[in-house]
Amino acid sequence: MSVDYAAQILEGSQRAAARLISWLEDEDDRAYEWMAKLYPHTGRAYIVGITGSPGAGKSTLTDKLTRVIRKSGLKVGIIAVDPSSPFTGGALLGDRVRMSELSNDPDIYIRSMATRGFLGGTAKATADVVKVLDALGKDLVIIETVGVGQDEIDIIGIADTTCLVLVPGLGDAIQSMKAGIMEIADVFVVNKADKQGADQLCGEVCSRIEIDAHIRKRDWTAPVVKAVAVEDIGIEQLWLSIESHRKYLLDSGMFYENRRQRTSRETLRMIHGELFRVVREQLEQNGRLDAAVEQLMNKKSDPYTLMHDIVCEWLSISKCKEAS
Amino acid sequence: MSVDYAAQILEGSQRAAARLISWLEDEDDRAYEWMAKLYPHTGRAYIVGITGSPGAGKSTLTDKLTRVIRKSGLKVGIIAVDPSSPFTGGALLGDRVRMSELSNDPDIYIRSMATRGFLGGTAKATADVVKVLDALGKDLVIIETVGVGQDEIDIIGIADTTCLVLVPGLGDAIQSMKAGIMEIADVFVVNKADKQGADQLCGEVCSRIEIDAHIRKRDWTAPVVKAVAVEDIGIEQLWLSIESHRKYLLDSGMFYENRRQRTSRETLRMIHGELFRVVREQLEQNGRLDAAVEQLMNKKSDPYTLMHDIVCEWLSISKCKEAS
Repeated sequence: MSVDYAAQILEGSQRAAARLISWLEDEDDRAYEWMAKLYPHTGRAYIVGITGSPGAGKSTLTDKLTRVIRKSGLKVGIIAVDPSSPFTGGALLGDRVRMSELSNDPDIYIRSMATRGFLGGTAKATADVVKVLDALGKDLVIIETVGVGQDEIDIIGIADTTCLVLVPGLGDAIQSMKAGIMEIADVFVVNKADKQGADQLCGEVCSRIEIDAHIRKRDWTAPVVKAVAVEDIGIEQLWLSIESHRKYLLDSGMFYENRRQRTSRETLRMIHGELFRVVREQLEQNGRLDAAVEQLMNKKSDPYTLMHDIVCEWLSISKCKEAS
Repeated sequence: MSVDYAAQILEGSQRAAARLISWLEDEDDRAYEWMAKLYPHTGRAYIVGITGSPGAGKSTLTDKLTRVIRKSGLKVGIIAVDPSSPFTGGALLGDRVRMSELSNDPDIYIRSMATRGFLGGTAKATADVVKVLDALGKDLVIIETVGVGQDEIDIIGIADTTCLVLVPGLGDAIQSMKAGIMEIADVFVVNKADKQGADQLCGEVCSRIEIDAHIRKRDWTAPVVKAVAVEDIGIEQLWLSIESHRKYLLDSGMFYENRRQRTSRETLRMIHGELFRVVREQLEQNGRLDAAVEQLMNKKSDPYTLMHDIVCEWLSISKCKEAS
C-alpha cells in the first residue's frame, strides 16, 4: 500500500480516480478501504440526474448542458450509465467517443458505466462513483441514464435534481407515466421541440404536473423547458431551472431531508449487496449450491424449505434462532 | 389451516391460486408453506417469455398467440409484468381490462404483476407465480414484460423460449442491441410488419443473428417472424417457431441444462432475498438504521465500515467471523 489513492484523489488526480472506479466496478476489495477514507470528504457535490427513454437525446443534452455549466467555472463529472449486454458485460464505447471533445477539458471527468451484474447492483456502484467524483473536487455530477425499470429509478434516486427528457412522437409521456418516471422529475425537458407534436406534448406534461400538484401537495412545481439540444436551444434555461430547484431544496430544508433518506436507502442497498456477495461465495465455494440444485431438480427438496434452513443456519440474529 | 390451498390448486382452483399469488405479492409468510407443498408438482409447464419495448404491441400479440395456442387444447397462464409507479406501487389495470375477453375462457388464467418494491424482487415473485400456474395445471405460461433493464432481463431469464418483439420506426433494433436484449431472444417477431421500414428492420435483425451465430456458435438459429398482431397475421407462424425451439431444446438436452441453471439462479436469489428481508426488518425495528444514518450524515462513520460490521455481526458463517 505504497500509493495513497485517497490523498491523490483529494488532490484531483483523475488517474487515481479512474483506478478506484475500476476497482469499484470489479468489486475489488481494495476499493472499500479507499472509499472509507474518502467518505468524510464527500457530500459537497451537487448531483443532477438526466433520464428519458432511448432516443430522447439525453447524451447531446448532457454535452450541451456541461458546456453551459463550465462557463460558470464549476467542475463537472459525468456518469453515463449504459444498459449493457448480459453476455459481454461491457459498456458501449459510444458515449466515450461521443464526448471526446468535452474530455479535453481537464475540469470535466466522464465515465461510462455498464449496468452489469446480478441483482441490481448498479445503483450502489453509481452512488460509489458519484462519491469518488465528489472527492475528486467536482462541483456538479451529472448522472445520465435510460429511464425505464426499477434499476434506473434507483439510479436516478441518487440525484438531488432529476431532469426528465421527453420528445414528441414517441408516446413518451404516456410510457413515462406508466413507468412512474414522471413522478420523480423535478424539471421536465421537451427536447426536439422543433418537431411536430412538441406543443401537444408540453400540454400533456403541464396538465400532468397540475394534477400531480393537487395530489401530492408539493411545494415545488416542476418547470417544463423546451429545448432543441443539437442547436443549443433551451440549454441556458435548463441550467437556470436546475439552479432554481437547488435553491428551493436548500431554502426549504428538503436538501438535507432528501440526502438523509438517500443515505438510508444507500446503506440498506450496501448491506444487501454485501450479504449477497458473502452468501454467493459461501454457497458456490463448498459445492453446496450444486448439491441443492440437484436436490431441487429431482424434487427431493423444495426451495422454500431449503432457503429457510440455510438462512437460519447462517443468521446469528436471535429472532431467526428462535424461529428455527 | 382448515383450507388446503395446495390441494385446491392442484385440482385447478383458480380462486385458491389467486389467493396464494396475493400472499406471494405481499410477501406473506403463509405463501411459502403452500409453495413448499406445491413445488414437487411443478416443472411441467412450458414457459414462454414475450418482451420488447413499450409500444411494440406485446399485449396484442400475447392475446392473439393465446387464442392460437388454445386451439390445440393447451391450457394457458399469462403473467403480465408491468413497470409500476414507485409511489402508488400498483399495477395498471389496463392489461386486465384488455384481456377481459380471454378471461372468460376457464382454461386461461391472467395475472398482472407490479414491478414494485426495493432491490429487484420482481424476478423472484414472477418465478413463484409461474410455479403456481404450473401447479394449477397450465401447460404453457406466458410471461409478458417490457424488455429494458436488468430486472426485466432477470424476469425473461425464467422463460424456456424468449420472443423479442420489435417494430419498425422506433430505432428498436439498435436500442435492443444496446440493452443486450437481442442476445437473449430465441425467436424474433417483427410486429406491425405492414408499416414502413419493416423490411429494413428484418434485414438488420437477420444480419445481427448471422453475426451472433458466428460469435457464439449456438446450434439454434433464431427465426424472424413477420407479424401484424392486430390483424392476426403471423401468429400461427410464431407459435410454430416457439414449438420448433422447444423441440430443439428437448432434443439437444439444453432444456434440462437451462432449467438447472435457472434453478441455481433462483435458489441464490431466494436465499439472498430472505436474508436481506430479515436483516432489514431488524435494522428498521430497533432504530439501528436511523442511528447509522445519523452517524453517516455527520461523517462520524463511513458506510463501508458500517456495512462490514453489520454483515459480520449477523452472519454466523465462519469465514466472515474470521475476517472480523
